[in-house]
Amino acid sequence: MCDDANYQWRIARYPIGNVQPEDFHWHVEEIPEPKNGEVLLKTHYLGLAPVMRFYMMGQNPSGETALKIGNVIHGRGVAQIVKSRHPDWKEGMMVQGQMGWQTYKVSAMTPQEKFFVMPNYGPNNKLPAALGAGVLGMTGLSAHAGLFATGSPKKGDKMLLSGAAGGVGSMVSQLAANVVGCDVVGMAGGTEKCDFIKKHGCRAAIDYKNEDIAAAIDAHLPSGIDLYFDNVGGETLQAALERLRMHSRIVLCGSISEYTRRDPFSLSNYTRLRRTDSMMKGFFVYNHLHNWEQVMDDLAGWIIDGKLKAVQDFVHGFEHMPRALANLYYGNNMGVQCCNVRGEPEIWN
Amino acid sequence: MCDDANYQWRIARYPIGNVQPEDFHWHVEEIPEPKNGEVLLKTHYLGLAPVMRFYMMGQNPSGETALKIGNVIHGRGVAQIVKSRHPDWKEGMMVQGQMGWQTYKVSAMTPQEKFFVMPNYGPNNKLPAALGAGVLGMTGLSAHAGLFATGSPKKGDKMLLSGAAGGVGSMVSQLAANVVGCDVVGMAGGTEKCDFIKKHGCRAAIDYKNEDIAAAIDAHLPSGIDLYFDNVGGETLQAALERLRMHSRIVLCGSISEYTRRDPFSLSNYTRLRRTDSMMKGFFVYNHLHNWEQVMDDLAGWIIDGKLKAVQDFVHGFEHMPRALANLYYGNNMGVQCCNVRGEPEIWN
Repeated sequence: MCDDANYQWRIARYPIGNVQPEDFHWHVEEIPEPKNGEVLLKTHYLGLAPVMRFYMMGQNPSGETALKIGNVIHGRGVAQIVKSRHPDWKEGMMVQGQMGWQTYKVSAMTPQEKFFVMPNYGPNNKLPAALGAGVLGMTGLSAHAGLFATGSPKKGDKMLLSGAAGGVGSMVSQLAANVVGCDVVGMAGGTEKCDFIKKHGCRAAIDYKNEDIAAAIDAHLPSGIDLYFDNVGGETLQAALERLRMHSRIVLCGSISEYTRRDPFSLSNYTRLRRTDSMMKGFFVYNHLHNWEQVMDDLAGWIIDGKLKAVQDFVHGFEHMPRALANLYYGNNMGVQCCNVRGEPEIWN
Repeated sequence: MCDDANYQWRIARYPIGNVQPEDFHWHVEEIPEPKNGEVLLKTHYLGLAPVMRFYMMGQNPSGETALKIGNVIHGRGVAQIVKSRHPDWKEGMMVQGQMGWQTYKVSAMTPQEKFFVMPNYGPNNKLPAALGAGVLGMTGLSAHAGLFATGSPKKGDKMLLSGAAGGVGSMVSQLAANVVGCDVVGMAGGTEKCDFIKKHGCRAAIDYKNEDIAAAIDAHLPSGIDLYFDNVGGETLQAALERLRMHSRIVLCGSISEYTRRDPFSLSNYTRLRRTDSMMKGFFVYNHLHNWEQVMDDLAGWIIDGKLKAVQDFVHGFEHMPRALANLYYGNNMGVQCCNVRGEPEIWN
């Protein structure tokens, strides 16, 4: 892929089950020109999230515009303003926001696109811009809003975390353990991921692909659960509901195990919330945008302090975006799945 | 029934579906004698609650001892101490606590039985002792704990309440409307009950037996629900989850529509809690016993102020207890279903 055009991934057909190569259409067009009041953005990094499969199905679970076949797929990322005819957004600015799956974008920088200027953090601005596609982007806001604003974690909480090796999960485990002082047991699929999560805040790991989930929870959390951070839904949520301590909290962040089922998952034991005065609380990351600056300051501070290791899992090259999305559903990523769109050298600190 | 013996209702067989006459065994034995450290209690009023069917099935969802066939059925009520060989509990005291379905009981007044002395409220102690079997008993504690400690109601909240004509429901509607200032839409079965609930705090009534529930909720609460107090579970809970406003709360109090199903009800749309940062919170009345005195003071004060009409629906005569329990499942009661064990004249203020 050269820098001579605007490359795009568009929807070729609505996915059924996990995404397939045939669901994506590779489109090349001229780099667009900004009109008065617009800017031209050049994409450097894109973040991937399970919600993108829903975008491709024409649904809009996160409040973005519903897409049709032939549309460019939604996706947030980090970009540089390379031309500006907008009074507030200057050439050279690094920003993050709704770029779509494309290497250039002309934008009037509307509120709907939720663009933020990438801040300078730490001595010598030593945090890489790539973090804006994940850890210091919408994934980071999800982890922070889900754990702190929704889960009300307390020091010493016996905590279960599913999807612990994923983008949100690998942040939540570290924040809960290193910032709050929770006792975190994480769930992930396979030995490699289980080793990974034990290095990122989890006291113990449950390999959901090779262990009996209920028995493993009992073994690692014999007195039950104060806080369950749920990224997967389904049978794991059902098992957690059977093991609640007094005043426990379940944070509904995602339910990836349910997304590719043909029939919706049904929860038969929600009434278990009663006996222990427990709650199940959902959150939607876009409801927390008003906290953006405070959250990013918090997260950047913890990265600089060493409490939070920023883990992003890159594919290199925009052409690999479809594979990167499929990875999320196959559970292949560790940390936030991202795409280094131009295959540029990265800076890690 | 004379006062010459201890009459009891015992479990003849475990109920399947709603309770049947053949599930109960009428037993007569001598009035027992208290030993040292015990008292003899004479039952005046018993309260009925859906949980009693579970007791009869040998389950102990509320933490009472699990029962077997042949055991006296659990039930709380109001009794007088007619003989005492206990240093702290005096003859003549009116108390409420775990009496069981019987007209006399010898008791060591253990903490497990959760006995409370009936307090004197208001000028001239004008509240009747019978209230201890419901409105100023465990039903009242449920309504108070469910609404205030669990639901965090706010003035102006758009509130949906199912089971609004029932024991807990008929209290919650009045407390929400008259104490907090919520805008309450109640659900009940049939015209008579719908008229009843409109006189007890509900701005509007939905007749779930004769109306399309979802359409009726939309008609009466077109902007959605801030607070859903759930006494019934099932399809009504499912419908409420589709109509949540930002930061809404669902209080899980009961799920009577599910109790007599052969297969457990499964909730397929719990993830609706996410988009609006909403929560579903359970509570268990026995977790709130430490607030007993404050709650009873609150409730008695609101009765005296006229904010809370105490509605108890009596059957007269201990022999009718099985019918009274079946009533709850057929939805025949309005207010707290109670039994005036001895058919005595009642005092209403």
